[in-house]
Order: sequence, then C-alpha cells, then structure tokens
Amino acid sequence: MSDRPDSASLRPFTCVGSRQLLETRIFTVHEDQVVSPRNGLIHPVTRLETADWVNMIVITADRQIILVRQWRHGIRGLTLEIPGGMIERGEDPAMAAAREVREETGYRGDDPVKLGVVRPNPAFLGNRCFTYLLENCRLDGDQQLDAGEDIEVVVRPLTEIPDLIARGEIANSLVVAAFWWLRYRRPE
Amino acid sequence: MSDRPDSASLRPFTCVGSRQLLETRIFTVHEDQVVSPRNGLIHPVTRLETADWVNMIVITADRQIILVRQWRHGIRGLTLEIPGGMIERGEDPAMAAAREVREETGYRGDDPVKLGVVRPNPAFLGNRCFTYLLENCRLDGDQQLDAGEDIEVVVRPLTEIPDLIARGEIANSLVVAAFWWLRYRRPE
Repeated sequence: MSDRPDSASLRPFTCVGSRQLLETRIFTVHEDQVVSPRNGLIHPVTRLETADWVNMIVITADRQIILVRQWRHGIRGLTLEIPGGMIERGEDPAMAAAREVREETGYRGDDPVKLGVVRPNPAFLGNRCFTYLLENCRLDGDQQLDAGEDIEVVVRPLTEIPDLIARGEIANSLVVAAFWWLRYRRPE
Repeated sequence: MSDRPDSASLRPFTCVGSRQLLETRIFTVHEDQVVSPRNGLIHPVTRLETADWVNMIVITADRQIILVRQWRHGIRGLTLEIPGGMIERGEDPAMAAAREVREETGYRGDDPVKLGVVRPNPAFLGNRCFTYLLENCRLDGDQQLDAGEDIEVVVRPLTEIPDLIARGEIANSLVVAAFWWLRYRRPE
C-alpha cells in the first residue's frame, strides 16, 4: 500500500534500557534508550505512562448534549468539553463512563455504548481514551464534585456541535474525536 | 446557557506557587499550588509545558491522502498518521507545516491553508496543535529523516479515511480531529 515499494518494511525499535525520571499523582515519566532499526544508532526517548481515560457523549431524549465547563490547569483557562475522566485501576471503562457522568453532571440514562477508542498521543503517551454514548439521559441528582473540581453543566442542541467546534468553544482534541465517532457511528 | 441557573458562575483558580519538577528534551513538568474558587482549598496540580505542534492533511490532485507509518515510542508500536511535528521556537506554523511535509514525505504542493486548532489535552498540556491542508501535492524529492526517524509513506484515497479510523488503523486523536476539520471546513 506504499507508493515507495523500494522502502524497507518498517521494523520495531528495540528498547535496550529504561529508567523512570519522575512519578506524579497522574503519570510517570520514563527515558528509554532505543535502537533504530534503520541505522543501528541508540538514542534516548521520553514517554509518559498514565491511566486510560474515558469520555462520554451524553444525550437527552430531545437530542440535547450535556457539556461541562471547567477550569483546566494545563491551559490555565476555562474549557467547554464533554464529561470525562481517568479510569480507575481495574475499573471497567463502561462503568467508569456512567460513574463520571453521574459525578460531574448529575445525569443518568441508558447503559453506555462504546463508540470508539483513540490514542491521545502515541508519540509520547502510552494510554488510550475510550468514548461512550449515553442516550435518553435526564437529571437524576446532584453533582458529586471532588474538592478540587468546579464544574458547570451546559446543555446545547446536538446540531450546534459543529459550530461550537468551528468557533473554538470546544477545542479539546479528544472531544472532537468523540464527535467524529458519533458522526461515523457504525452498527455493532 | 446552563440548565442550572442556580450554579455560581465559574471563576478562575488562582496559582499561588509553582515549581519545575523535571526538564526533558521535549517538555517540562511543573507542579502548581492552586486555590479553588469554590471552597478556597489549596491543592497541587501537575502540568506539562511543551512546544505547539502542527499536523497536515496532504492531498494530491487526484484526492489521494499522503499518510506516514512509523514506530511510536509512547505506545511502543507502529501507527498510521498524517505528517506532523513540533513547531520550532519562533517558527511560523504554516512554514513548519510545509517543512515537515517535505522532510517526512518528500511531497510538496500548494501553500498550507489553516483548517483549525485544537488543545491536545487542556487538563495537563498547555500547548496547541494547528492543522493545515496542503492541496495539489506531488512527490518532489527524497525524505529527509532525522537519525531517530524511520518513516514509510502510505498513499490512500481520501474516501477511505472513515474506514481507516473505524477499523482503528488511524487512532491518533489529533489526526481524527484534523479530519473533523476537513469534513466541516468553512470558507475563510
């Protein structure tokens, strides 16, 4: 399938050494020494190990999307996103999806249906992000926020999502990918 | 626009202290002490500072997409993606886009046109990823790979992209977001 039939088939890089540089609450940082299969040279690469993530498209019976607005420390600003979070160790991703929706928004609905999986950044992150769809959701309780969370629930028509992305109001790449999965949803 | 009119308007978290935990070749890691506007509690948050990235949808005159297959150290496996890379300090994103396409694929075409910008992960990454479209591209030279790179060029019809994503062959969230931008492209 390549237009360069003379290119060598790609082979794996080999890891010949690895050390942990840092451990934080949400990830560990590692430096690996890897050997290039193309030229045999050894060079260092940096990578992060972190939990898998989950995010959720939450829709009401009248096709409204439940979004969350919150302060994000990475960009030091407010964002508009779909609910999401880390999957706890040993937790089923669908259970994590339903749990995060209840905690962040107070909504509850049909069982989560898996839409797809993406790699947040395969260049240096080892984890995955699962996207689930929860339909027929309705407000069913209060938010249950951690001490460090401050989340506002925002309800918008599903039809407005392309506009919200085009205007940059929704900008998280993982949220854009989730709406791609919804747009190109296939039968199970 | 909220369904919870009784919720307080969101206010910024205030950073009352910050220290750098680690510096690597591609990012720095920081721990900030932040004050919650909701309850006044101080808690630590971890964030990464790294360069802005750019990725490029490269199309030939006959609507073929130029993809790259390569080993990715984050997931320790091969991926199929669109070309991309870091923007060098002070470099214009459009210049970086054209440069990366030439280096990684040997293709060249029309001037890059900006499709959109995403935040790779606003929760802990501070940077942006710009997506550009390069049309009417054709092979115009050899790849110019760094010693640590081993990249195979793969050409596929644009119409196959949703299938490649659905099957998980294209899984990088930033690439999926790029194709969202192409799908919902608006006039400048």
